[in-house]
Amino acid sequence: MKTDNAQLAAFAAVLRSGSFEAAAQALHVTPSAVSQRIRLLEERMGQVLLQRSTPCRPTPAGKALARFAEQVSLLEAEMLGEIGAGGGPEVGPLRLPLAVNADSLDSWFMSACQEVLTDAAVVVDLRVEDQDHSAVLLREGSVMAAVSASPQAIQGCSVAPLGIMRYRAMATPGFVHRYFPDGVASASLSRAPMLTFNRKDELPVRFLGQFGERALTPPTHFIPSTLGFLEALKSGLGWGMVPEGFIGEQVAVGDLVDIAPGYPLDVALFWHRWRFASPVLDRLTQAVRGAAARGLRPPVSPV
Amino acid sequence: MKTDNAQLAAFAAVLRSGSFEAAAQALHVTPSAVSQRIRLLEERMGQVLLQRSTPCRPTPAGKALARFAEQVSLLEAEMLGEIGAGGGPEVGPLRLPLAVNADSLDSWFMSACQEVLTDAAVVVDLRVEDQDHSAVLLREGSVMAAVSASPQAIQGCSVAPLGIMRYRAMATPGFVHRYFPDGVASASLSRAPMLTFNRKDELPVRFLGQFGERALTPPTHFIPSTLGFLEALKSGLGWGMVPEGFIGEQVAVGDLVDIAPGYPLDVALFWHRWRFASPVLDRLTQAVRGAAARGLRPPVSPV
Repeated sequence: MKTDNAQLAAFAAVLRSGSFEAAAQALHVTPSAVSQRIRLLEERMGQVLLQRSTPCRPTPAGKALARFAEQVSLLEAEMLGEIGAGGGPEVGPLRLPLAVNADSLDSWFMSACQEVLTDAAVVVDLRVEDQDHSAVLLREGSVMAAVSASPQAIQGCSVAPLGIMRYRAMATPGFVHRYFPDGVASASLSRAPMLTFNRKDELPVRFLGQFGERALTPPTHFIPSTLGFLEALKSGLGWGMVPEGFIGEQVAVGDLVDIAPGYPLDVALFWHRWRFASPVLDRLTQAVRGAAARGLRPPVSPV
Repeated sequence: MKTDNAQLAAFAAVLRSGSFEAAAQALHVTPSAVSQRIRLLEERMGQVLLQRSTPCRPTPAGKALARFAEQVSLLEAEMLGEIGAGGGPEVGPLRLPLAVNADSLDSWFMSACQEVLTDAAVVVDLRVEDQDHSAVLLREGSVMAAVSASPQAIQGCSVAPLGIMRYRAMATPGFVHRYFPDGVASASLSRAPMLTFNRKDELPVRFLGQFGERALTPPTHFIPSTLGFLEALKSGLGWGMVPEGFIGEQVAVGDLVDIAPGYPLDVALFWHRWRFASPVLDRLTQAVRGAAARGLRPPVSPV
């Protein structure tokens, strides 16, 4: 083989941690050992693989190698686990880098992780990303699977529907009384303050698009955190789109009401994973499907 | 005056929304009007101010102008409010762009916002940032105030202590029984799985630094969301650092126990704001101090 696994591991560790020093610490070697392995790897590949920036980023050639390195590292950890040599401090636990959309992570997704992470030999490395960025991460190999609202298959990955997350426009009764005494319509919606997660959040725009011909631009609070968002909602700062699965025993949301019961928004979610034989990815896929079946509405069948 | 406020508003709107199209929609004008205003502004300044990238970013000269534009926009909105001409759809609500660390946003901070945001004429635009990035945002004028763990005053800003957020290392009783039957020490801590928010989270490293001479690297789950983190903690996936203020009526955390009662970690928080006369910033500062006094331990006096 042309590649050396110690060199690949050093390369992957630098990308993960962002620096030679942090990679050295994670691998229990000196920074100069990491630096030498990267240099040898670059010589062998005949390409510069890493931009020595803060944090270190892969070059275009480095991106292709990064995915390969993550795959080799998963295969090696599984193989060592199988022959009873895994999980020790020399090898480290098997790491699952995954991308998840924020609302899934805050509701049904963790119960899937729990099934797979029965002991300290497997750890998750979660990233909260919207679908556009998930696709990039899957392609470059930074994550091995993702929950995303995109049905688009990514090269080298399989995709399967998980189910539907239904959102409702919610507010306190006092807020409804003040801003929507005659119900929800174009005029009242352009005056009533709205809560949005961040600028990438398309749900409020989709919701508003159902009312009025031209784009409505109500006063908008940006609150990019689920707990802060729910807190603002409960205190009557505005109305906001809430996944129906949120309103459970985990978070007390008080007596919020649906401001437009006839206008829920449905977001279909999909599971993307490397098309790549791996027992732990298979087990995780099983668990994610089970948790989605419990926490989401069933996917719409493509009839 | 050398600058034109309609041009400045177009410039600020492009930076905020990332594109000429989105800025045009927010300002209720056509994209070509936005584009013309930016061009005129650049001609008058004799400098390119915007990189036409996706999203649009300021050039170094543009950064200085961006802060000025945000300050003018706040002053104008306040002045219009004073003379009774503000808050209409033509002017839009007064916008408060703020940076907050994640744990503050998820606990005490929203109650401060509520006091200021009594009606639809003021909206918050929150960003979750660590202290390094908050400083950059304050300097370039993207936010007008920030809650940060850095006591370092930023040019043009004042800084005042808010109080102490105390963190405790928590886990389920079952987890403690399995991994720490003989208490917390270097050997048990290097085996027990740990929960971390993300790679910038320094609390676990600070906590581990109190045990053992060399750096401990336990199996680590990365879960960058407060609700997901607490869910993982409750289900016994690992131990993790939890702000003591979290454990209230807002989130059910079950019967977690402190794995090392003698080793809490204290993080001092500070309020940075533009040194700039503004009634709404003054009111927000009052409210933030009040909420911090209720939600945090008192700041250590510099005796």
